[in-house]
Amino acid sequence: MEAYLDNSATTRCFEAVKDIVVKTMTEDYGNPSAMHQKGVEAENYVKEAVARIARTLKVQEKEIYFTSGGTESDNWALAGTAYAHCRQGKHIITTVFEHAAVSAPLAALEEQGYEITKIPVDKNGKFSMEKLEKAIRPDTILVSTMYVNNEIGAVLPIEAIGRLVHEKNPKTIYHVDAIQGYGKYRIYPKRMGIDLLSVSSHKIHGPKGVGFLYVNEKVKLQPMILGGGQQKGMRSGTDNVPGIAGMGLAAEMIYEGLEEKVAAIRENKLYLAKRLSELENVVINGPKPEEAAPHILNVSFLGVRSEVLLHTLEEKGIYVSAGSACSSHKRAGSATMAAIGASKEQQESAIRFSLSEFTEKEELDYAVEEIQKVLPVLRRFSRH
Amino acid sequence: MEAYLDNSATTRCFEAVKDIVVKTMTEDYGNPSAMHQKGVEAENYVKEAVARIARTLKVQEKEIYFTSGGTESDNWALAGTAYAHCRQGKHIITTVFEHAAVSAPLAALEEQGYEITKIPVDKNGKFSMEKLEKAIRPDTILVSTMYVNNEIGAVLPIEAIGRLVHEKNPKTIYHVDAIQGYGKYRIYPKRMGIDLLSVSSHKIHGPKGVGFLYVNEKVKLQPMILGGGQQKGMRSGTDNVPGIAGMGLAAEMIYEGLEEKVAAIRENKLYLAKRLSELENVVINGPKPEEAAPHILNVSFLGVRSEVLLHTLEEKGIYVSAGSACSSHKRAGSATMAAIGASKEQQESAIRFSLSEFTEKEELDYAVEEIQKVLPVLRRFSRH
Repeated sequence: MEAYLDNSATTRCFEAVKDIVVKTMTEDYGNPSAMHQKGVEAENYVKEAVARIARTLKVQEKEIYFTSGGTESDNWALAGTAYAHCRQGKHIITTVFEHAAVSAPLAALEEQGYEITKIPVDKNGKFSMEKLEKAIRPDTILVSTMYVNNEIGAVLPIEAIGRLVHEKNPKTIYHVDAIQGYGKYRIYPKRMGIDLLSVSSHKIHGPKGVGFLYVNEKVKLQPMILGGGQQKGMRSGTDNVPGIAGMGLAAEMIYEGLEEKVAAIRENKLYLAKRLSELENVVINGPKPEEAAPHILNVSFLGVRSEVLLHTLEEKGIYVSAGSACSSHKRAGSATMAAIGASKEQQESAIRFSLSEFTEKEELDYAVEEIQKVLPVLRRFSRH
Repeated sequence: MEAYLDNSATTRCFEAVKDIVVKTMTEDYGNPSAMHQKGVEAENYVKEAVARIARTLKVQEKEIYFTSGGTESDNWALAGTAYAHCRQGKHIITTVFEHAAVSAPLAALEEQGYEITKIPVDKNGKFSMEKLEKAIRPDTILVSTMYVNNEIGAVLPIEAIGRLVHEKNPKTIYHVDAIQGYGKYRIYPKRMGIDLLSVSSHKIHGPKGVGFLYVNEKVKLQPMILGGGQQKGMRSGTDNVPGIAGMGLAAEMIYEGLEEKVAAIRENKLYLAKRLSELENVVINGPKPEEAAPHILNVSFLGVRSEVLLHTLEEKGIYVSAGSACSSHKRAGSATMAAIGASKEQQESAIRFSLSEFTEKEELDYAVEEIQKVLPVLRRFSRH
């Protein structure tokens, strides 16, 4: 048996997504910038993808820009805003537990003279609205927060943050890294006060190597990648038609019957949480499972190092993550676990389980049973 | 019948490339950054692709970095070098007829205070080595030239340029935009004095949305996209495994029996050139067909606007390009045609034919016959 419980790292492509990728690689393989029929055909796939994505967000089609993935979307949103608004101010607000795709470009901006304020979270990953309110200044050009934390599944109050940001400073731009939130929540940027929204395709059963950035039409953003002037000059390079078409279809599919699917994912996760809680010396990290995002569960099996349990489980065909696993083999401490004040023991033994609509209850049973079997052995071993 | 003669805009994927893309999207779909077996499996596809590409160039595997395509490779090479070496100097040399993926980021660097010198070419697209020699200064940090011009197929003397650059200033870095050259020529950066080399996958029957940059291990380059620290921190973001695996395979396949395949492509092109030359009022733009790259032929059908001929031909299933067609529906004048001093009439009637290893002689016959039929009609029409 196999149990793939690492869906926050990446997901398997939908079959229909695979089909559209194949079609655009081998039949309708034109360059959308070409003026002839084969170009127009290819361009139609891109237009269809734009329409599909815009519908899920209830935004205008012209507000969607394609990128090479969530990391490029985040980098572009942050640097593009910072450079376009540097005369207005150089103050940027973020949280303590962002993904490296946000924290790393912000650190680079800090070296270039921007000032970065990081709002803390409590032990449940709860975001401090009071501290945000106090932090917003006349020279605050940008606030950037994630929607769902990738390690512990904490959900940020995006709509309230959006409202607060724009009330305190109407000129401040609000960027949301929705890489773990899109496809799990209905996100309506216009109503929620989101100016920029980063999304990755491969977290929603779409192809890798593609993502998008929603950019409110009123937002000034400096392009990052220059060239042939594709995407209204905002992001050059031949459109990745197979990736874009695949992501568009995945976006449409993930939002079909979302509520039912998400309820089922959550039910599975709560079941997993309940069964794991019955084991000895197990701590659930971050928010209560019922309050966290539907698909992420972070658990410390005290006394067993994450990597040891991870590798023991992989031998049984059970795939989980230690830390965020979006970082390249990073064994260093996790910013999120430190941010929520997890003990060293908790941090060293944390495992992330992340589910998808394909996760079956039997996989969870299998995973729990195997964990139950190996835990005493590993704990005995680690004491020597 | 169909004649796809726009292979410099983009190519159809190899069947085997499609297969590896499908496999990595639906079966071996792990995140290479994940520590478990599914991650390792995915990482092996990336390693195999690195090895395949490194072998075609005879470089070290650690010198290959993956990007989202040729445009990102070019942008990164230029800005990454400029920022990393700004204390050493701010002078950059390029040519007058670069692709926008090079000329646009250089224009942005110029706005930031870098000085850009553009070396002219003659009417055949021949590069002036004398002018290059005079232009290299102690503060020249970078020389960037294309390998093959994308519009007229002019081939630059890369090895001679590399030698000259490093003789005149050993600290100067030489970047080659090989997007139209890779897969047509054997390129050995170590022997040719190339420090940075940009390549795009979809020009060699690989997937769109992926490319690579060769970076000589001694070159200091500032990363452009930051985050999870993938690719030794030089280019973050979840590896696009299907794209990378597909490109690696395409690279290997395109170099298998290269000389024979390229000779056949050239023979086809010379045949096309000969037959078109027999028509009235036809001018071949740029270098002589036998001196140009094997796959590109640029022809002006005087008295007929490019777009008109292009759209007439597409109705017959013949796909060609007006201008470079890597730019988004750009109808503005072409930098290349201006650079070689083409007349207004030549510029307005220029058509680019670009061939691949899949191009059949029958397609060329068909294209020539159709052109022969429509030319008198279109010319009569355009006089009114």
